[in-house]
Amino acid sequence: MLDFDKAGGLVTAVAQDADTGEVLMLAWMNREAFEETVRTNRAVYFSRSRNRLWRKGEESGNVQEVVGVYVDCDADAVLLKVKQVGGAACHEGYKSCFFRKLDAGELTAVGERVFDPKKVYGR
Amino acid sequence: MLDFDKAGGLVTAVAQDADTGEVLMLAWMNREAFEETVRTNRAVYFSRSRNRLWRKGEESGNVQEVVGVYVDCDADAVLLKVKQVGGAACHEGYKSCFFRKLDAGELTAVGERVFDPKKVYGR
Repeated sequence: MLDFDKAGGLVTAVAQDADTGEVLMLAWMNREAFEETVRTNRAVYFSRSRNRLWRKGEESGNVQEVVGVYVDCDADAVLLKVKQVGGAACHEGYKSCFFRKLDAGELTAVGERVFDPKKVYGR
Repeated sequence: MLDFDKAGGLVTAVAQDADTGEVLMLAWMNREAFEETVRTNRAVYFSRSRNRLWRKGEESGNVQEVVGVYVDCDADAVLLKVKQVGGAACHEGYKSCFFRKLDAGELTAVGERVFDPKKVYGR
């Protein structure tokens, strides 16, 4: 169903807000993360920096309830339609990780900040 | 502005329909592709299989006019909001590359097919 061999055991995953259509984040999945996501209807990714499964929201509580799973034509990317608990996907407290817009050569934060990371993660 | 070192000179790019919010495709960009995209307001990717720049629509005519460029918190992913000329981003003729939905363990084509690939690509 998915081609995990193309990128060393991983596929890319895009999470999209099921209600608003906003693209929330991009992450990676290995086979185990994908299978757990499908089985539990909770988004589970593979953290390349920590080299382990990353159950989205495990620390912040901002889990993603999965309402639809789509696979692309090349079978190396997954689109999750999710309900974002807590209203923010980004660890910086923004609704979307793509909160910076390129404008005249500069990046400007345009996204909606929902929480203060210091309060959620204590750092 | 972007961290091209994390994945061997490439960042991931998500194209989203600027009007409907539909996620159209996921692809890759090297620095040259990103800079040309920003300069021309036309989506340019880097094809890993062909190992060269891929000016989206160069063969099909289905170019993507870029109306917004967003960068994620880790600076290794780009979100393009685009107007998809021809109405279809996928080389299989579907509006979105994510035209297959997972349902009870099976993938089913649920996306809208806009053109016949044989007529567009002659194969």
